[in-house]
Amino acid sequence: MKILIVYAHPEPTSLNGSLKDLAVKVLKEEGHEVIVSDLYQMKWKAAADGDDFLSRGSERLSYIQDSKDAFLTGTLTADIQEEIRKLLWSDAVVFQFPLWWFSMPAILKGWFDRVYVNGFAYGIGEHGGDKWGDRYGEGKLLGRRAILSLTIGGREKHYSQRGINGFLDDLLFPIQHGILYYPGMTILEPFVIYQTNRLSQEGWEHHSQLFANRLRNLFNEKPIAYRKQNAGHYDGEQVLKPGLGQGMSGTSIHLLQPGEPREQF
Amino acid sequence: MKILIVYAHPEPTSLNGSLKDLAVKVLKEEGHEVIVSDLYQMKWKAAADGDDFLSRGSERLSYIQDSKDAFLTGTLTADIQEEIRKLLWSDAVVFQFPLWWFSMPAILKGWFDRVYVNGFAYGIGEHGGDKWGDRYGEGKLLGRRAILSLTIGGREKHYSQRGINGFLDDLLFPIQHGILYYPGMTILEPFVIYQTNRLSQEGWEHHSQLFANRLRNLFNEKPIAYRKQNAGHYDGEQVLKPGLGQGMSGTSIHLLQPGEPREQF
Repeated sequence: MKILIVYAHPEPTSLNGSLKDLAVKVLKEEGHEVIVSDLYQMKWKAAADGDDFLSRGSERLSYIQDSKDAFLTGTLTADIQEEIRKLLWSDAVVFQFPLWWFSMPAILKGWFDRVYVNGFAYGIGEHGGDKWGDRYGEGKLLGRRAILSLTIGGREKHYSQRGINGFLDDLLFPIQHGILYYPGMTILEPFVIYQTNRLSQEGWEHHSQLFANRLRNLFNEKPIAYRKQNAGHYDGEQVLKPGLGQGMSGTSIHLLQPGEPREQF
Repeated sequence: MKILIVYAHPEPTSLNGSLKDLAVKVLKEEGHEVIVSDLYQMKWKAAADGDDFLSRGSERLSYIQDSKDAFLTGTLTADIQEEIRKLLWSDAVVFQFPLWWFSMPAILKGWFDRVYVNGFAYGIGEHGGDKWGDRYGEGKLLGRRAILSLTIGGREKHYSQRGINGFLDDLLFPIQHGILYYPGMTILEPFVIYQTNRLSQEGWEHHSQLFANRLRNLFNEKPIAYRKQNAGHYDGEQVLKPGLGQGMSGTSIHLLQPGEPREQF
């Protein structure tokens, strides 16, 4: 299969760098084709602006409209076009990055801001009436798997269900559901290493084996059971119907519960 | 009072630009001093890397350690030092930005990644035993108010408690609690305009008046009642104690409930 690794860390000899190298090695051993987007090495432009569109004149910038026009006419800058090509080529995408301030590093956020153009990652399908586009279970990236591989400086307990930093599942919801699931990707449970500043050699050996095993099972693992938008779970205003997700609150209501059918019509 | 506006939008004539201009005008009319960090106009460097530290040699980059050393020795780059100075000068900070992919634009994330250095925004106070630093209710930015002013392309219902995109309070938790509350700021309810692509002149007049009123009451509004870390609510592992936040789940357990005392000892 074809795997894209999007990697965001400024130091090649960092833990993140080692995990990226390990991923390349393991995935190639498994017989996959692997491409790495090393955002720091590529000096990826993080800030979305009018320079992203080759044919734009001096008129007022509308990123939504201009990105759609440029996507349709092939006038996005070469760096963006290349990343779109890699995404469409891939069967799975591994995102390797440190959790900085409860989210991804700016350079990776800028990858999504710029690559996820209108007409590609959003603005797909019918919009109107009860239909709000092909998203959350549909979209141009349907059929691809995505996994976050994260390093976290803090302790696991601080990210537990009642931990001070917030539950990791909640912190990652804007990324996993909001960014990756939106254009149709299938999301696997994240791979996480905590307390990375105190990682011993034994710790590395332990975690690197766990990571390698996750990667070997990339296409067999059961994904996170997010509900599909257009499968009867949400009403015409895209609000979860009464009776679904009861007894839960917060981001977890968007997970299919045991016994609930995938299609709810 | 002294107010810092951190503004992140590439188009000066955008709705975000108009809201920023309005904020400057209203806050000055109220007699406040106002400074704007216009990140796009400043060409703010978004990606955190080794170039952020003037005295660093060629050794392996450790952003955590190197940022602390550079902060203590005054060898952060001038752009970072200037933003730290503005934060310390301020009594309140207004963040004006569009919600892109359920979070802030990369250029703004890069402002936090680079300005929030070790020894300034984190790594403050005792770490050890039951004490995990001065954060969440303590820290170097204690006493300052912070408010997010957001524009959102989608519909309000899609961001409601059971809406398809996730509840806005959950989506903003990593920013409001994780980034702003962490170093001690007091967080106000966000100001939000939805469906910004369809905003009519009447809509603008309506929302700009609401925004002006929020700004006039910046120092009178009741803030979001996040629990303090070191006030007895969390146990020695920083997990919320049994009996607190019962009947709630997700990010809302970190809000003080009616009748619960601020200090829980």
